[in-house]
Formats: sequence, C-alpha cells, structure tokens
Amino acid sequence: MPLRLADLAVRFGCELRGDPDVLVERVGTLQDAGPGEVAFLANPRYRRHLATTRASAVVLDAASAADCPTAALLHRNPYATYARIAQLLHPGRRLPYGVHESAVVAAEARIDATASVGAGAFVGPGCVLEPGAQVGPGCVLLGDVAVGADTELVARVTLGYGVRLGQRCIVHPGVVIGADGFGHAPDVDGYVKVPQIGGVTIGNDVEIGANSTIDRGAIGDTVLADGVKIDNLVQIGHNVRVGAHTVIAGCVGVSGSTTIGARCILGGMVGIAGHLQICDDVVLTGRTSVLNSINKPGMYGGALHEQPFASFRRSAARFRHLDELARRLRALERRVGSTDTQDGDDDL
Amino acid sequence: MPLRLADLAVRFGCELRGDPDVLVERVGTLQDAGPGEVAFLANPRYRRHLATTRASAVVLDAASAADCPTAALLHRNPYATYARIAQLLHPGRRLPYGVHESAVVAAEARIDATASVGAGAFVGPGCVLEPGAQVGPGCVLLGDVAVGADTELVARVTLGYGVRLGQRCIVHPGVVIGADGFGHAPDVDGYVKVPQIGGVTIGNDVEIGANSTIDRGAIGDTVLADGVKIDNLVQIGHNVRVGAHTVIAGCVGVSGSTTIGARCILGGMVGIAGHLQICDDVVLTGRTSVLNSINKPGMYGGALHEQPFASFRRSAARFRHLDELARRLRALERRVGSTDTQDGDDDL
Amino acid sequence: MPLRLADLAVRFGCELRGDPDVLVERVGTLQDAGPGEVAFLANPRYRRHLATTRASAVVLDAASAADCPTAALLHRNPYATYARIAQLLHPGRRLPYGVHESAVVAAEARIDATASVGAGAFVGPGCVLEPGAQVGPGCVLLGDVAVGADTELVARVTLGYGVRLGQRCIVHPGVVIGADGFGHAPDVDGYVKVPQIGGVTIGNDVEIGANSTIDRGAIGDTVLADGVKIDNLVQIGHNVRVGAHTVIAGCVGVSGSTTIGARCILGGMVGIAGHLQICDDVVLTGRTSVLNSINKPGMYGGALHEQPFASFRRSAARFRHLDELARRLRALERRVGSTDTQDGDDDL
Repeated sequence: MPLRLADLAVRFGCELRGDPDVLVERVGTLQDAGPGEVAFLANPRYRRHLATTRASAVVLDAASAADCPTAALLHRNPYATYARIAQLLHPGRRLPYGVHESAVVAAEARIDATASVGAGAFVGPGCVLEPGAQVGPGCVLLGDVAVGADTELVARVTLGYGVRLGQRCIVHPGVVIGADGFGHAPDVDGYVKVPQIGGVTIGNDVEIGANSTIDRGAIGDTVLADGVKIDNLVQIGHNVRVGAHTVIAGCVGVSGSTTIGARCILGGMVGIAGHLQICDDVVLTGRTSVLNSINKPGMYGGALHEQPFASFRRSAARFRHLDELARRLRALERRVGSTDTQDGDDDL
Repeated sequence: MPLRLADLAVRFGCELRGDPDVLVERVGTLQDAGPGEVAFLANPRYRRHLATTRASAVVLDAASAADCPTAALLHRNPYATYARIAQLLHPGRRLPYGVHESAVVAAEARIDATASVGAGAFVGPGCVLEPGAQVGPGCVLLGDVAVGADTELVARVTLGYGVRLGQRCIVHPGVVIGADGFGHAPDVDGYVKVPQIGGVTIGNDVEIGANSTIDRGAIGDTVLADGVKIDNLVQIGHNVRVGAHTVIAGCVGVSGSTTIGARCILGGMVGIAGHLQICDDVVLTGRTSVLNSINKPGMYGGALHEQPFASFRRSAARFRHLDELARRLRALERRVGSTDTQDGDDDL
Repeated sequence: MPLRLADLAVRFGCELRGDPDVLVERVGTLQDAGPGEVAFLANPRYRRHLATTRASAVVLDAASAADCPTAALLHRNPYATYARIAQLLHPGRRLPYGVHESAVVAAEARIDATASVGAGAFVGPGCVLEPGAQVGPGCVLLGDVAVGADTELVARVTLGYGVRLGQRCIVHPGVVIGADGFGHAPDVDGYVKVPQIGGVTIGNDVEIGANSTIDRGAIGDTVLADGVKIDNLVQIGHNVRVGAHTVIAGCVGVSGSTTIGARCILGGMVGIAGHLQICDDVVLTGRTSVLNSINKPGMYGGALHEQPFASFRRSAARFRHLDELARRLRALERRVGSTDTQDGDDDL
C-alpha cells in the first residue's frame, strides 16, 4: 500500500521538503534504495551514501537536509521516525485467529477468540491467552502461563509453569522462560538440588531474542520491567530484576539475584556477578565483567581489545608480573628520591 | 500438606528450637516469608533480615540461632537442609504415565509403563525409557537413546543418536545433546567434514540448563560423570570429559578433547581451550580463559573487571605498550644501579 | 561394509605401506582402535600412541611412516584424508523420503519427491525443498523458505520467513535462522522497534552448530558465503556478511553490519563490534574483542589467560592504575635524565 510523503509527514510530525505527492511503499538503505523506497540517515558512518541515493525520500535531521538530493522528511530523531514509517509500510505477518488443528490445548486453558495457536504448539492446563496473543508453531507452554494481549511468541518458545508475560511483547524462537534457576547446595557427597519455586514476571513491550534464557526465581520471581529489550543468547539468572527500558545486547549473562536499574545499556557479552545492585542509567561497554555493585550512573568498561597477537602476547606476559613491576618502580623512586607522582605527562 | 517442625527436625537431623507442633507448608525468603512458611539463612549478606522475619521457622546454623526471633531448625549446613525441606514441601509436577496421543513413538522403541512421553514428542527407533523417565512436550530423541530411571527431559530437549543418560537427571528446555562436534579438516579448497561417530554418556544425578549444548564425540564418547551440574547456555565440545560433582555456571565453553576433573567449579563465561587436562578441585573464577593444563588444585583467575570507562581506557592504552614500559623500567634500573627488585612495598 | 586398503589408497590418493588386502570397516583412535579399524595421526600431541596402536591401518604423513607398526596410508594431509575415509565408512543416517504423517506442510509448499520432512515438523506456505533436502523432526519453517539440495536440518531448527539455504548444508538442532535483528530506536519514552525486513542468504556447504542464531537483515540480507563453518551457540547479528570458508568456533558473537572476509578463523568466544570490516585471512585467538576494523591479514589477540588467583588479583589491581604507573615512570626518567627508551632487554 503506497503512502504519500505528505501523509507520512503529518502522521509522524516531520517537516517535508519536496513533492508531497511522492509515493513510497517500502523502506531501503541509502545505498541501495530505488524509486518507491524511503531511506534514512542516522549514523554519520553512512552519510557518504547520501549524495548518490536513488531513494524517493530520505528521513534525516535538519542538519543534513541541505545535502539530500531527493525529497526529505526532517525530524530531530530520524531513526525512530524511520522505525515508525517502516512499521507502517511493513506491518509483519500474523497467525490466523484460532487454534491450529495440530496443536494440543489443555481443556483447562483459556484462549481468547482473537488469539492464535500455531501448528504443533502445546498449551497446558491453566494457561490464558489474552486477545491478539500469538503462540507460534512448536511453542510449549507447560501450564499456568499468562500471555498478554498482542504478545507474540514467534515459534518454538518454551514457557515454564507460571510464567507471566505482559502486552505487546515479542519472544523469538528458541527462547526458554521459566526453566529452573541454578541452585545446588553443596553437601558432603555432592550437591542437593534447591527447588526453584518462584516464577517469571515480564512487563509490557518487552522483546527477547532467539535462544535467550530467563530462569524462574528460587522463591520469589525473576522480573523484567516494561520496555526491556534483550538480544539473542542472553542468560538471565534466577531472581534477577531488570528495570524499565534497559537494553541488553547479545551473549550477556546476568547471575542470580542481581538487580539492574532502568534505562541501562549492556553491551554484548557483558557478565554480571550475582547479588549485585546496578543503578539506573549505567552503560556497560562490551564484555565488561561486573563484580561489584554500581551506585553511580555512567559508563563502565573492562575488556581489552584486539592487538596483533605477537605484541599482545608480550603485553600479557608483562601483565602477569605487573605487581612486581610496580614494586620495582616504587623502589626506584625511593632510591632516586622522587616523591611527586603527579607531574607525569601523557606521552608514553 | 503442612508438616510439623518436629517431624522436619527428625527427618533432616536438625536441632529444634521452639514449638515442635508449628506447621509449615511452603518455603519463603527471610524477608518476605509469612506464617506457615519456613525460611533459611546461609548467606551472611541476608542476615540483616533475620531479626524482622515473620517466617514460622528458620533453618540456620547454631552460630546464628541466638538472633532468630522465631522457631529455628539448627543444622551445620542450613542451605542443603533447606533444599531438602523445600523438595519435600514442593515436590514438583510430573507428566502422567504413558505416551501422549500426539506424540510419535517408533515401533522399535521400548517405553516403560511408568515412563511418560509428552505432547508432540518424538521418540525414534531403538530408544529406551526406563521406569519413571519423563520426556516432556516437544522433545526429539532421534534414535538409540537411553534415558535412565526417573530422568526428566523437561520440554523441547533434543537427544541425538546413541545418547545415554543415567538416572535422576534433569535436562532443561532447549538443550541439545549429541549434535556433531566441530570437526573440519582443512584442505586446499576449504574444509572436509570429519564425521562425528562417537556418542555422549551422562551419569546419574546430572542437571543441564536451558539451551546448553553437549556435542557427541568424534570417535569415542563425550562423558559427564555423576552429579555434574551445568547451567544455561553452556557449550561442551566433543570428547570432553567432566568429572563427578563438577559445577559449571552459565555461558561457559569447553573446547574439544579437554578433560576436567572432579569437584571443580567453573564460574560463568569461563572458556577452556582444547586438549587440556584440568585436575580435580580446581576453581575458575568468572570469565577465566584457560590455555594451559592445570595440575594443581586451587583457584585461578584471568578476567579484568569493571572500572569507570575513562580510566579503564587509559589503563588499556598503557597495556598495549606494557612490554615497552617494562623495558624502560629495566633501563632505568640499570642507569641508577638498582639491582634489588624485592624490596618494594604494597602501596602504589 | 569392509573396504580394502588398496581401494582406499587408490580412491584417496594415498601411498600404501603394508598388505593391500587388509579390510577396515570402522574408524578408531590411535589409542583405542582394534582390528578392522583405521586410525589417523595428525596432531603431534597424540604421536606417543603410534608405536602401540592396534589399528589395522593408520593414515599419516610420510614423515611419521617409519614409526608406524601397522599398515599405513600415507598422505600429505592425513586429517582430511581420514575425514574422507570416515565419511565413506560411516555415511550417516538420513530420513526416509516423503513427509511424515505427523508433519504439517502448507498446501502452497513445494517438496521434492526425494526430500524428507520428519515427525512434527512444520513447513509453511511458499517453502521449497530441493531434491534430497531433509527437514528433521520438530523443525519449523515459517514460510517462503528455500532449502537447497541435500541440505539437512537435523532437528528442531527454526527458519524464519524468506530464509534461503544453499546445497549440502548441515544445520544442527536448536539453530534459529532469520529471527529479527536487534534494532530499537531510542526515543523520549523508551525504544521504537525497527522492523527487520531483510532476509538471510546462506551459500553451499555451510554447517551451523547447535543453538546458534543467525539474524535476518534489517533491510538487506545477512549473508554466509560458501563453506562457512559455525560451531555451537554462536550469534550472528543482522546484516553481517561472512566470507567463504571462514570458520567460527563456539560462543562467538558478531554484531550487526560487520563484514568478515574469507578464510578467517575466529576462536571461541571472540566478539566483534558492529559496522566493522575484517579482511580476508584474519585469525582471532579465543575471546578476542574486536573494536576496530582489521585491514591486514594475520593473527590478532586480546584476552588474558589463567593465572593463580592471588597473583592475578595483584596484577589486576595494578592494571587499574596503569596510567599513573606509566606517568611515574616517565617522571622518573626525566629526573634521572634518561631519554633513550629503546635500549631495554627482554628480562623483567
């Protein structure tokens, strides 16, 4: 369904430069878009493609407008505006209403007439699917699960007993929510399993990426607040609480009983130890290991990055003796009589 | 089913302080438990909640008993004792005996009358389910798989050809046991796949967390001994052997043909290179990368932790030139005539 | 089916030492093989088992031939030759042709007569299975998916809308190809989902390990070229392009819009940031974090390795103040009058 630029501008609060009657029906990249497609410029890295774009229109900010060779939709937040336009042009598929004949639904489950259950899915006793909820092919809802309105389980998602999901969530294939947390009490001859009897409570507008795992609480619940976005292959331990609008990139692990605040951003492969408190508005760069609570908003890091291997190996070898090196420096300072340690300059 | 404290004390070898006729029927946290609930104190971090707990009883050690405002079950190992009480109070659900009508079971499979196969599961030819074995909804057992007595595959577990599981194991959703190991022989124009014809042998009382993967051996078997506990999203390569009662936290990766001893503890995100030997009783702190065999029990580490990003970046920049820095120190020592490198003190 | 050594030698271009009529029917390890089994020696680590092997024949290179106590198949690449022999002796199982009666196949799907669809699988509208394609039990192909000739989806694989796989690929259980990429545009009150409308294009002879995830492109496609080999629990972000014959070990994460060249080798747990270019023939050692584009072939590293924890902790504490330490060294050099920073020697 092609849309007029003028209509898009009105709907999303953009200033329009160019012909209001131009029609667009798909999105495209600045580099590859052609006629009928709308592109966007948000990352300066891709600005070099602006001058030569063949898109019918570009969403960008006012500062870049002068360089745009085609119709432009100006907005202070071009990426979010592009996202909204793309949602409109590419609304996504949804399952037909009702239960597929190959699905197994327990008699005690309650499925709204506008909800969907796909092929081969299993919906156990006590489950409730609110209006518009979509349970894709091959999903397993063991029992007593609540799926909020318009929440979509794409395919092959597993929800353990008692998991509760809010509205408009998207859960990607392979996700497991509500498996037992990792609780084993050491005893004289091995470990005793600690029953994991808590649940998982997930707010509205949460998205969880493929093959991520969110464990159930040991006693209370594991909780993801509204608007949390989680990428693929992320592990969230039991009793963890994640605050609203926090974003967690791929391959992150959060150990049990840790609380993460609101609006945090966790880079890929970040790991957080258990029983910590991370306050609101913390940014953790990729692969940071967090071993202590963080009480002050800001950016934290902790992972070395790539280096030609030969030179890395030399640095790593020195690192192993860094304490000795520091002691030798101190000894030398004493010998020479230096006491002022603050007058260094920046060059190595 | 409420239980008397006196009965719990006798059954689990606790010393009881307080009214023996108090009834408990659920577990709870020190902080949130109410009447009818039994809590525990094992981690000193939570001791501050003891004085105000409203639990009907608390499991703790003798040293903490004096501060307990309610009935107490004293034991030298309160966490393991709590775990056993919780198992009694919260016995967990199990599938009904027999094969769900929507499951597909090969004619050549042997299913004990007290075993269970859930909705949509597939049990291929040559599989054997011992008494009490539970194969949850959506599991796939490709063929020639042995599942020991009372072992539970919760849901959507995949077991490749020839995988053998012992008794009382718990395998969480999304786990894949017996996929091909990563074997590719480089040749002039790419790689040749090395067939992975070994199996996987898993002992008794092993637990494997959601979406973890245990590859089959290249020629012989990959082996997990009795009592091994593995958390979520862990990767165990082909031919790996893990000793009894070793515990592996989330997001760990163990490369092929490495042997890990008994009673080891691997922190989250630990990575171990291939073809190594790790002896018994080794503790690896979170995110340690192990590149060499370890022959001596003890604790090993290797991952930096979080730091405000600006200061981390400065340290990391210096790290890249650490070898040069060490050489400059050595040159300076020679100039000054210092030869004693052992008299430093601890302060930087 | 036992095979004569003479026939193997001719077929795979080996020089045969020993009785050409010896029969082998299985492969085995140097250490454990017995009569009727063929072993190989490629890794010098296992050479110690050569003298005592009881294998009927060993595949090895000419340099090791003199020490081989049994029949030998000599080849300059013994590992690849072993792999080809093993493929011949252990051809692997395949599903019977046709659609299992419990599978659900959309009317609009096109399934070649020699393709297979296993128990409980779902093949949505618009899917095409080429000759010999195998869709194992529990797989979900949402729609418009193309599976090339002789490509095998082992079990419980999920392919999103529009995913295209080439010929002779192997996709292991739990893999998710074509889930949405992680795209969320920050706005004043949370994030706006960026629709992920691109696809995934995978070449020929690609293998993808258990529970790995390959996201669909945001606008264009995510692309894996011919011969790419990916281990378990690997995350490939949206718009990533991986060049031919690149090998990616377990637990790696590649962020969105990064391009990796041909013939690269990524060690386990490597992480690569987004929007980077990695040229051909780059080797990244295990756990390297790549934050910058790499334009020069070679080996790069960046992860510290294990150390006894007490000494590691001292090094890590010094690391946090490494910049200050370097400044103090500089100050000392100035005091002492040293200016030549290049005359150091190697010993610490």
